Amino acid sequence: MPFATLPTPCVLIDIDRVTANIRRAQDYANSHGFALRPHVKTHKIPTFAHMQVAAGARGITCQKLGEAEIMADAGLDDILVSYNIIGFDKLARLAALARRVKLTVAADSAHTIAGYLRTARAANVQFDILIECDTGGGRCGVQTPDEAVALAQMLDGGTGARFGGVMTYPAAGKTALAAEWLAVASARFDAVGIPLPVVSAGGTPDLWRAHTLPGLTEYRPGTYIYMDRSQVAAGAARLDECALTVLSTIVSKPTPNRAIIDAGTKTLTSDLLGMDGFGHVLSCPDATLTGLSEEHGILRGGGLPRIGDRVRIVPNHACVVSNLFDKVYVVSGDRVVDAVTVAARGCVT
Amino acid sequence: MPFATLPTPCVLIDIDRVTANIRRAQDYANSHGFALRPHVKTHKIPTFAHMQVAAGARGITCQKLGEAEIMADAGLDDILVSYNIIGFDKLARLAALARRVKLTVAADSAHTIAGYLRTARAANVQFDILIECDTGGGRCGVQTPDEAVALAQMLDGGTGARFGGVMTYPAAGKTALAAEWLAVASARFDAVGIPLPVVSAGGTPDLWRAHTLPGLTEYRPGTYIYMDRSQVAAGAARLDECALTVLSTIVSKPTPNRAIIDAGTKTLTSDLLGMDGFGHVLSCPDATLTGLSEEHGILRGGGLPRIGDRVRIVPNHACVVSNLFDKVYVVSGDRVVDAVTVAARGCVT
Repeated sequence: MPFATLPTPCVLIDIDRVTANIRRAQDYANSHGFALRPHVKTHKIPTFAHMQVAAGARGITCQKLGEAEIMADAGLDDILVSYNIIGFDKLARLAALARRVKLTVAADSAHTIAGYLRTARAANVQFDILIECDTGGGRCGVQTPDEAVALAQMLDGGTGARFGGVMTYPAAGKTALAAEWLAVASARFDAVGIPLPVVSAGGTPDLWRAHTLPGLTEYRPGTYIYMDRSQVAAGAARLDECALTVLSTIVSKPTPNRAIIDAGTKTLTSDLLGMDGFGHVLSCPDATLTGLSEEHGILRGGGLPRIGDRVRIVPNHACVVSNLFDKVYVVSGDRVVDAVTVAARGCVT
Repeated sequence: MPFATLPTPCVLIDIDRVTANIRRAQDYANSHGFALRPHVKTHKIPTFAHMQVAAGARGITCQKLGEAEIMADAGLDDILVSYNIIGFDKLARLAALARRVKLTVAADSAHTIAGYLRTARAANVQFDILIECDTGGGRCGVQTPDEAVALAQMLDGGTGARFGGVMTYPAAGKTALAAEWLAVASARFDAVGIPLPVVSAGGTPDLWRAHTLPGLTEYRPGTYIYMDRSQVAAGAARLDECALTVLSTIVSKPTPNRAIIDAGTKTLTSDLLGMDGFGHVLSCPDATLTGLSEEHGILRGGGLPRIGDRVRIVPNHACVVSNLFDKVYVVSGDRVVDAVTVAARGCVT
């Protein structure tokens, strides 16, 4: 079936580009001797996670327990939950997960680590802990290498909750800053005689600079499987490597220079990520998606399509788009070859 | 059960505020002699649509056919789809819907109307058509009253697809502009002897100015049932009238002035709607939600809570938040009284 007949708006996944994107990143990691641990938050689809592992990935990364549970249900057996897991109920879920898979989890505070130690002891389970380091991203993470060492020492001799290494989500475009931070941290750990089995970083914008991070053992790119307009802007991908597009129909053309599409923030989200416009409309090079309301997009410029015509849009941010859809259509060329459920969609807990 | 024990992040709906918000808007409409036709895009929950109708609403408004189909399945029987329905498959769904409910639909072009006329004839169904007018909103809609009259005349004598009146979604804060436009349009329709059974406008920001629109017969507010931070900013609601909040946990506190919550754009979306910050954090009056990534929110300021503490957030935009969740928790005071499926979540087609 040609995708042109699908109800719009809908998400198309070009499977040939997905395959090539997975291959390219894995080859890059292989050639530099570090492991890939793809972040599934982008696709939230077990089949794609299995493709990533089959291509050579060490395991997968999830941001939330709910995603990890879905992936474990589907047979993924080596999972990093790159998040501080807080609270009795969530720690119970963490313990249940540790019984099923080789589990690693993040921590950036004594509070978090105390919970992990209690959980591992009470539930008699084993998992590894990576100390999350704020190397310039300004989100989670300890502020200094000394704090990282101090947290690692809390885990000294732990048999259930074991120290596994360090992780960071560097600020986009600031790989050098993260490299400096990790070098200092590595020296500090060395000085106290604690080995660093894992040094983990992530982020697709700087994926191709990962090899410049000292002592890196694994990298956690997410968006690279689909790529998107923000990655093209960051220089991490070409437009013709973007695998996720939104198919949309022109539903109104109130003026010659304004066309309205049936995709709004409930399809594309309002993520701008520092760019102008809410997506790149293929086949309309002179038009800009200047505004979105919930179910309408406003396309302005010259050479606009007619009412009833369809356009394909490369969204600003693929990860939040796929999270809005229960299923995506897998296409090869102009043919639909599958429809796949976004199994971990909406798993925010 | 107290809501404090729910897994976070999650959406809480204060049912007492919902009831009061529905009542307040209906009383206002009643007192000014126009009908209310609430837009269900905000809640996407049939139970709440039935509450709106029970309070006196004429019927409901949906933006997409998928929403209307879910509402029709649940027994809502008077539906306006305020959208240009384009394409063979969607027109077939429109015809199927017209067999089940009293249906009204929007049009702003000869293309759209031709499709409606063909559909009504071929399927032998009846529905009403409102001509959508761009009274300053700059989205869909005919640009002049004369165009509206010309489209209405295309429907002259139609027995299946019948002219029903005009509708507009005025620019926020520009009710006077819409009023002027509608007054001119009304005179034009008068001059050609076409009555206007329905004059419909919408939008919660200007809900309380609806009575200043000349000849208004119905109003389509959506957000009013929940209200949100943007409506408070627009002066349409007080903070203590906001019925939808997001419950979130502090998962990290890297510095004394930075706390990280477990709600990001996959919970709150990146909608700013012209405001600073991504939501109003109740109980943290000195803190600002300065940034979101997909699963983290960054709270900066003084008096921040501790790791493990929970906060309630009034989001910038309630409609896009509820569209991210499969279910919401109905609360009264601090008790959970129900968990309701967001039945039309993700119905963008």
